Amino acid sequence: MSRLEPDTRDRYAHFSTLTTRWMDNDAYRHVNNVVYYSFFDTAVNQYMLSQGVLDFDASPTVSLVVETGCTFFSPISFPDLVDCGLRVAHLGSSSVRYEIGIFRNGDPRTAARGHFVHVCCARQTLTPVAMPPGLRAALERLRLPAA
Amino acid sequence: MSRLEPDTRDRYAHFSTLTTRWMDNDAYRHVNNVVYYSFFDTAVNQYMLSQGVLDFDASPTVSLVVETGCTFFSPISFPDLVDCGLRVAHLGSSSVRYEIGIFRNGDPRTAARGHFVHVCCARQTLTPVAMPPGLRAALERLRLPAA
Amino acid sequence: MSRLEPDTRDRYAHFSTLTTRWMDNDAYRHVNNVVYYSFFDTAVNQYMLSQGVLDFDASPTVSLVVETGCTFFSPISFPDLVDCGLRVAHLGSSSVRYEIGIFRNGDPRTAARGHFVHVCCARQTLTPVAMPPGLRAALERLRLPAA
Amino acid sequence: MSRLEPDTRDRYAHFSTLTTRWMDNDAYRHVNNVVYYSFFDTAVNQYMLSQGVLDFDASPTVSLVVETGCTFFSPISFPDLVDCGLRVAHLGSSSVRYEIGIFRNGDPRTAARGHFVHVCCARQTLTPVAMPPGLRAALERLRLPAA
Repeated sequence: MSRLEPDTRDRYAHFSTLTTRWMDNDAYRHVNNVVYYSFFDTAVNQYMLSQGVLDFDASPTVSLVVETGCTFFSPISFPDLVDCGLRVAHLGSSSVRYEIGIFRNGDPRTAARGHFVHVCCARQTLTPVAMPPGLRAALERLRLPAA
Repeated sequence: MSRLEPDTRDRYAHFSTLTTRWMDNDAYRHVNNVVYYSFFDTAVNQYMLSQGVLDFDASPTVSLVVETGCTFFSPISFPDLVDCGLRVAHLGSSSVRYEIGIFRNGDPRTAARGHFVHVCCARQTLTPVAMPPGLRAALERLRLPAA
Repeated sequence: MSRLEPDTRDRYAHFSTLTTRWMDNDAYRHVNNVVYYSFFDTAVNQYMLSQGVLDFDASPTVSLVVETGCTFFSPISFPDLVDCGLRVAHLGSSSVRYEIGIFRNGDPRTAARGHFVHVCCARQTLTPVAMPPGLRAALERLRLPAA
Repeated sequence: MSRLEPDTRDRYAHFSTLTTRWMDNDAYRHVNNVVYYSFFDTAVNQYMLSQGVLDFDASPTVSLVVETGCTFFSPISFPDLVDCGLRVAHLGSSSVRYEIGIFRNGDPRTAARGHFVHVCCARQTLTPVAMPPGLRAALERLRLPAA
């Protein structure tokens, strides 16, 4: 199985800058692997909120996380800043695969790369349904032109 | 201002045993000070759930945290187990002051001591109201006999 | 791409029981996806410590996390207990792929399945080296007999 | 016992801006009380790093947290930004009491107020020692003029 390689900023459609916390550093004095997933989760939800397509009290649909993953290339440490690049790699009728690049401070190449799969479900039954058009449109804006 | 001293297991009315996590250890290889507050928060909510007096979807009242604090005596580290002792030190008409003792593994004396103040509020207005009788009765059971 | 299915307790060689925390529940009142990775990280390090093959101060090698992933099947929520099943799926000369099953309370089938890849590196240079024999032996004990 | 009141930005000598994370929101959809302590811990360590007085590998002294506390006035929620105001309220020969104000987005008054007490200890023995002059000078710069 081939391992992912670091990629570059031009491969991402949207960026969020997040601060690290002292307690993110673990006994090895690097941001613990678990914390990267909070960056993914935060970047995705922040994007959805900024586009007005996440209303966690009242929307008829909710997005459930069904799969995530991360490949780690080089460490980051508090007090580094993290730029989270976001793109949509696959958009189905009810599911979306986000891909995330973690850039340490101003670095041009990713320190880690992740993916995050959301499935749009009816709030009451938690069964998959087609995404509402507004959500789909917001996600389309995260697709990259074909390379 | 006098500093708190460690106290002993007989000073607590209820215990929860919690596991530490690898990432709780910070760069100094001890459980980070922030994590102790998750022990307090967990012990209080676990007690309330076990007594059937916490229904976060439907109860007409909610308990808001208005003050917390902790004095640290000696470190704990993953993979230590934490015994959280709980007592009620003050019970007003709408507020309760919990005091918590953190015991590392089987130690007889606290590694840290905390407090946690909840105010019972109307869910809709978030203004203080008298505690429901069931909640009050559950909290009375955490009071210690006068020393 | 075929999606993983839940599996069962007999597919894991070692178990750790971990407590959830009140703050693990996110706005949807389920344990947030990020927290599952702390279960993986904790189960792996706890196993290594229990086998005497993790000495993070003085060992000549350290284990770096290079890849992790998780597939989520059904929610868990505080105050659920989590049984983390652990097995070794692949053991190379310097790398190991752990697979982890997350079982909610006494459930027979996984609520989530994860993987976690460690590479053994020289502490000074952080370049891959062959695993020390003691670590390798401990990991061999997590392999399952061929199905 | 009198309860603290919110205070204002002019009462703090230094500010750090921190991002909230999706998982900081708990089941009540507000940043969980525990997370505020990570803001305190981060603001203090970030200040010390920025002043060149925190070298956690090699300095002969380390700063141990002996007491922390927080009073909560009003909620913050992801994706709010947090401005952490910092001042030094007491500076002894080996200990320092920091006071922290948590401001939600651009608010003029604190959503929460905290304190954080560090004791300077010899790295080897972990017993209190006088602060090194560089650390003391950096902390003096966080004192406010008498009101």
